[in-house]
Amino acid sequence: MRVVTKNGPNAPPYTVPDPATRDLFLDAVRFDARGLVPAIAQQHDTGEVLMMAWMNREALDRTLATGRVTYYSRSRGSLWAKGERSGQLQHLVDLRLDCDGDTVLVLVDQEGVACHTGRRSCFFVALRDGQLTEIAAPVADPESLYGGKA
Amino acid sequence: MRVVTKNGPNAPPYTVPDPATRDLFLDAVRFDARGLVPAIAQQHDTGEVLMMAWMNREALDRTLATGRVTYYSRSRGSLWAKGERSGQLQHLVDLRLDCDGDTVLVLVDQEGVACHTGRRSCFFVALRDGQLTEIAAPVADPESLYGGKA
Repeated sequence: MRVVTKNGPNAPPYTVPDPATRDLFLDAVRFDARGLVPAIAQQHDTGEVLMMAWMNREALDRTLATGRVTYYSRSRGSLWAKGERSGQLQHLVDLRLDCDGDTVLVLVDQEGVACHTGRRSCFFVALRDGQLTEIAAPVADPESLYGGKA
Repeated sequence: MRVVTKNGPNAPPYTVPDPATRDLFLDAVRFDARGLVPAIAQQHDTGEVLMMAWMNREALDRTLATGRVTYYSRSRGSLWAKGERSGQLQHLVDLRLDCDGDTVLVLVDQEGVACHTGRRSCFFVALRDGQLTEIAAPVADPESLYGGKA
């Protein structure tokens, strides 16, 4: 049975695929030697690339099964439900696999900010006028996000 | 001396940073144990995520120095100037580094298609109606791209 979950304010409702359908996707992914695949999170409506992190098969299955994006933390060696500490949830809109099966694009509806620095996107460093420059300012207080990676 | 290069039809002219400025960016990147960093290519104006590939320091420097996006091919063990075989060049618009310094976002103006299958983006596989589905069709003949990864 499929379950339609509530979703973020700017995303359509998410329909949970049944386990056999989820396996179709999971079986098509070519995880690396560590059992991981890079996952790019993109805000579904604005197109903003928010972050890149890693998923193992269990994280990917949990993402599909719950509609809440879940990564695998290489530093902690455990699953990491995005927003579990910071409240900055990523609601799943769509998952895309690339032609080689070795990278996943995760279309999300990001609550609040994706970056643990309080910025909307993690990609805020660029060259400007010969200097390495922060081209976006925090829009949330990092301390209020518990100082940890959200 | 900085050199302004011609760029793709939909991108502003690209100004080449001098070597010392390029080093500011390169020194901020945390390459992995293999000396590589994941690089996400995004079409600068539409926001479409086109592909993900890898760069080493030399590829990243060449990208900045030429305004033509260059990757490192793990399978061939050599630099890979995007489009060198297929003609599907990626013109550099901007480079962004993430908060951890371990992923690069490459804003590009993509000539033609990014995917060796002839599709604009490599991310064209998704679940639809319980099936793994190709959600985009080729817009270029893969044979005309020499059948190889562009």
